[in-house]
Amino acid sequence: MNNLLEKNFKRHINLNDKEFNIILNSIKWKVVDRKEFLIQSGDVAKNTYFVNKGLLRLYQVQENGVEKTALFAKEEWWVSDLYSFFSQKPAANFLQAIELSEVYVLSKYKLEELFLQIPKLERFFRIIQQNAFIAQNERIMDMLTKSAEQRYLNFIDKFPKAELIISQKQIASYLGITPEFLSKMKKEINS
Amino acid sequence: MNNLLEKNFKRHINLNDKEFNIILNSIKWKVVDRKEFLIQSGDVAKNTYFVNKGLLRLYQVQENGVEKTALFAKEEWWVSDLYSFFSQKPAANFLQAIELSEVYVLSKYKLEELFLQIPKLERFFRIIQQNAFIAQNERIMDMLTKSAEQRYLNFIDKFPKAELIISQKQIASYLGITPEFLSKMKKEINS
Repeated sequence: MNNLLEKNFKRHINLNDKEFNIILNSIKWKVVDRKEFLIQSGDVAKNTYFVNKGLLRLYQVQENGVEKTALFAKEEWWVSDLYSFFSQKPAANFLQAIELSEVYVLSKYKLEELFLQIPKLERFFRIIQQNAFIAQNERIMDMLTKSAEQRYLNFIDKFPKAELIISQKQIASYLGITPEFLSKMKKEINS
Repeated sequence: MNNLLEKNFKRHINLNDKEFNIILNSIKWKVVDRKEFLIQSGDVAKNTYFVNKGLLRLYQVQENGVEKTALFAKEEWWVSDLYSFFSQKPAANFLQAIELSEVYVLSKYKLEELFLQIPKLERFFRIIQQNAFIAQNERIMDMLTKSAEQRYLNFIDKFPKAELIISQKQIASYLGITPEFLSKMKKEINS
């Protein structure tokens, strides 16, 4: 059951069996029910999560009750409310499972311990963080330069099963459009 | 002249004089004229830059000639076209000085050497990258949840001298609105 996690680490750094076992002993395994919360807005994010199976959604709820999706995290992604996780201040986001999921759970405390025990993990998370930054930047440029229709098509391309398991409301909240506009747009695309 | 750079490193990691000197010997100092390019779209970004003084702008030019600003980098910021820098593939962005600036120049080659010589630099850049990711995510959430007026006021708050040295066209290209709309909005704010 550790295959995906091991592959993920070894994509960026060399780890021997002893080192990988230290990591495994610091990490918990958790099955997350559909709609279960891993982080609640207002609480401190104690953990970061590696998605082994399933799909998670990180989102905020505005004062008017409207949800805005920061990101969807699919298999092989690390996800948390990073501001809260690293500052240990209250989270602005909710992290919730969209479908029945399996995650590895790594606490802030254990991660700091691991950085001391296996310093090359700094390299690993530096590269993970760097790739996440590049992806975020691409999203910003897409928001500035691409039409909602183009962004929707890119999204479906990146998350092929999106239409099956993510609600239209949630997809719209990621694209920054209303569900009504998304519905109208899809009709035009399919016509 | 190394005060700001030294402070920047020591904010996140401990460095002794010998280590800091190794870094200094790997880094070049460059004065950048107003409007001078550090990265050109289509070229490979060979370097990452630390802004010691001044202000840089990272932006793309769309097919229709319209510019879209990915970010403004002020003093104490590290900036490059990170995708290009780490992959050594052609850059999508231009990096240009908005005003007369001073930067430290660190090449990909030297950085990889430094990671081997001073492994705790992985920690430094992991933290820098993490903070940049958090800031980017905040910008995405602002784009999804805040009005153009609120985003403009936040921007001015973050870059107090923006109005003095950044053109209206460039500010609009960062906010994702037209210069005409920015001008109209400012009149309303000031009325």
